Amino acid sequence: MRLADSFRSERFGAVRIHELQRVIELDSGAGDHAGLLPVSSAGSRVVPPEALRAVENEMVIVVPCMNETRSVIEGVLSGVPHDCLIVLVSNSDRLPVDRYEIEAQTVEQFCRLAGRSAVTVHQKDPGLAAAFKAAGMAELIADDGLVRNGKGEAMLIGMALAAMTGRKYLGYVDADNYVPGAVHEYCKAYAAGLHLANSPFSMVRISWHSKPKLKDGRLFFSRKGRSSAITNDWLNRFLAEYSGFGTEVIATGNAGEHAMSMELGLKLRLAGGFAVEPFEYMDLFEQFGGLLENPNPDVMAASVPVLQIETRNPHFHDNKGEEHVQGMRMQALNVLYHSAVTLPSVRQAIIEFMVAQGALETGQEPPRERVYPPVGTLALDLLYDALDAEAQSFREFDGRSMAGLPQAPPIERGRIPGMEAPRAA
Amino acid sequence: MRLADSFRSERFGAVRIHELQRVIELDSGAGDHAGLLPVSSAGSRVVPPEALRAVENEMVIVVPCMNETRSVIEGVLSGVPHDCLIVLVSNSDRLPVDRYEIEAQTVEQFCRLAGRSAVTVHQKDPGLAAAFKAAGMAELIADDGLVRNGKGEAMLIGMALAAMTGRKYLGYVDADNYVPGAVHEYCKAYAAGLHLANSPFSMVRISWHSKPKLKDGRLFFSRKGRSSAITNDWLNRFLAEYSGFGTEVIATGNAGEHAMSMELGLKLRLAGGFAVEPFEYMDLFEQFGGLLENPNPDVMAASVPVLQIETRNPHFHDNKGEEHVQGMRMQALNVLYHSAVTLPSVRQAIIEFMVAQGALETGQEPPRERVYPPVGTLALDLLYDALDAEAQSFREFDGRSMAGLPQAPPIERGRIPGMEAPRAA
Ligand SMILES: Nc1nc2c(ncn2[C@@H]2O[C@H](COP(=O)(O)OP(=O)(O)OP(=O)(O)O)[C@@H](O)[C@H]2O)c(=O)[nH]1
Ligand SMILES: Nc1nc2c(ncn2[C@@H]2O[C@H](COP(=O)(O)OP(=O)(O)OP(=O)(O)O)[C@@H](O)[C@H]2O)c(=O)[nH]1
Repeated sequence: MRLADSFRSERFGAVRIHELQRVIELDSGAGDHAGLLPVSSAGSRVVPPEALRAVENEMVIVVPCMNETRSVIEGVLSGVPHDCLIVLVSNSDRLPVDRYEIEAQTVEQFCRLAGRSAVTVHQKDPGLAAAFKAAGMAELIADDGLVRNGKGEAMLIGMALAAMTGRKYLGYVDADNYVPGAVHEYCKAYAAGLHLANSPFSMVRISWHSKPKLKDGRLFFSRKGRSSAITNDWLNRFLAEYSGFGTEVIATGNAGEHAMSMELGLKLRLAGGFAVEPFEYMDLFEQFGGLLENPNPDVMAASVPVLQIETRNPHFHDNKGEEHVQGMRMQALNVLYHSAVTLPSVRQAIIEFMVAQGALETGQEPPRERVYPPVGTLALDLLYDALDAEAQSFREFDGRSMAGLPQAPPIERGRIPGMEAPRAA
Repeated sequence: MRLADSFRSERFGAVRIHELQRVIELDSGAGDHAGLLPVSSAGSRVVPPEALRAVENEMVIVVPCMNETRSVIEGVLSGVPHDCLIVLVSNSDRLPVDRYEIEAQTVEQFCRLAGRSAVTVHQKDPGLAAAFKAAGMAELIADDGLVRNGKGEAMLIGMALAAMTGRKYLGYVDADNYVPGAVHEYCKAYAAGLHLANSPFSMVRISWHSKPKLKDGRLFFSRKGRSSAITNDWLNRFLAEYSGFGTEVIATGNAGEHAMSMELGLKLRLAGGFAVEPFEYMDLFEQFGGLLENPNPDVMAASVPVLQIETRNPHFHDNKGEEHVQGMRMQALNVLYHSAVTLPSVRQAIIEFMVAQGALETGQEPPRERVYPPVGTLALDLLYDALDAEAQSFREFDGRSMAGLPQAPPIERGRIPGMEAPRAA
């Protein structure tokens, strides 16, 4: 993959946000690249296949999924590079038809055909709730005793499962993407970005090139998502208020497609629902911005690069409609408003904006979004044992052993951080 | 890339048409593959990256282009694997704005950024017509002294330019594709198919997974193109009439996306306009079916595998409308009707069908499509010299030398088949 160079960046404490970088070539060849060094020429930089593979080999792709069609899910799976491990977290209806069963079959069949490994689980499995309680995150459980609904919650579950595999990187890909080639490009961009970031704490966020929309029966390729523009504007305003300089550096506030090093992921606090993506920025600023007490000493010594990559493919997916977008946008503002590092002038402006939008009554405060403790605080060994024992929907597929090849279980008990001894064979 | 195995095939003389094969994984990893051998397991087969590269290194991708937007063309270029050489043949308007100049600039800029080579030319360049006349194909020239309009004509020009590069493979990719990841997948599928075909005379044809359509303001992913279904039905009927067995083996009669070995390409006769793709099948049957006199002895001894690959990505492109489709469909029937190897019963049925469709008056014959001599009959050395001397629109970009790297001219005079001595340096 060849990426345009990013010439500018904005620092906020240990966080260094790099300007958006375009993908120039999806496949930049194997030619004359000396080993793993990125080859740079004329404003662009090649990440050679071996470097991409080295990251993919250590990467888990988490796919949050809720009531998507089988053929779309199949397409998404086909786009995830072979060496990545797939974790599907479903919140699909189980009645009248058990859609999760169909999803799990789809994943199993794909693993069998492609000789790959994967893990699936259902968000509403009582055994999953019990496992999170046992592992030390009762916050995730609602009054009905089950894990809460929400995309952020699914991402958290996925991160915990990913952490159990012992792999070093984690990426998210939505299940509702109609273009397998786009999924493929996201994963390659994750690998390229994480390779270039070259830091134990790093994040890569995707901005899609365009998003096809229907208007008067014709297709338009608009370049900005509806809610993205607003989220980005406010995050940039947050930064500008500190630096005194206007900036447009943040282009990925709502990026559903993003990846990070597991070391960073384990430290991050994730928010619930659709607040999850913009809140990641806020949590980076809170934890690694150097403004609050008790900054993370090991991270502050290093740095936390955030790479933003503009992919080539259009983002062509199921359209959940206007109401959903309005909701997402406001969730971003809620987290920005309530962050301990947001300056009072910005908080005031947010209120005015929300009132003007009719999203807030005068004199009220924006609601708080739910924020969970870092996945790094979980006892992963207890989580695994409880899942294994109690979660009926928890499936581990080993497509290599299905194909008669040497075993490659997705989760090996002995590699789980915190696990003392491998289970007796 | 991992492809499902093709279990069945139909033979017609030396031509062996393989059943449609699905793409299972876009990227099947580099893991445990012994060298260049395709790894087969459980009904599928991996073509490892080195094997793909070996083909891409020898492949020219021809892009026929007529009045497409700059950003779409840029996306298409970004999807063509680095090691392939790009040939853009344009028939775009040059007035009031010179769209060709914009296209050539787009290609040049891409070559500079990506360190790649490419060739571009305009179909209506008087120098191009002169060059084809000099090289021995006056059939291509219309009464106005310029090369005729038509996609088939553009493909023929592209093939001739590709032949001059001395590369071994040739693939076609339309310029109006909105999904760079689909272009990428087509090229990988070409490489995988040509590798697996493992014959000096081979062809790979793409069937896209689905084609998004607008209907009542919603998007639908229909699995068959409107004209494709009819073309395929008639081609299969052609085969069935010989074998006595019904068949559905042909699924790619109208495939705009296809590739072949240059050795095969140089022997094929191409048809004009949109008749070009279905006519390729007919010409294979005529030349290599063993029914007519003077079969090609060197090919008859070998075999001519035709692989058909169903890609994962939707084919998402500019919609030229119903009239165009009706035209394409009838062109396929015209070539089928007029082929010397089509049995009388099929010819009669074609007439009845066309009359019923209102596309033919009772008692008339379908019109003949224009068919050109094989590109292999051209004097490529004369073609190059005339292009070089007279064709103002003929551009050769060497992005490697632009980037200060060692030269990599797309066409080296000394490698042109038929060229005696390299030009003085
Ligand atoms: N497991 C799980 N997945 C979810 C949940 N909510 C959404 N998803 C999935 O998350 C992905 C993104 O959700 P969408 O609702 O499409 O959100 P979006 O794509 O950002 O929104 P639009 O761009 O407006 O369509 C999809 O794959 C959904 O199936 C949830 O509560 N649990
Ligand atoms: N150079 C050249 N390119 C052409 C010509 N006609 C069409 N093209 C290009 O060939 C490609 C395919 O042409 P389309 O007209 O879109 O045909 P199609 O995609 O098969 O038809 P639809 O599926 O109905 O849209 C596009 O990239 C066109 O720009 C021509 O006369 N000369």
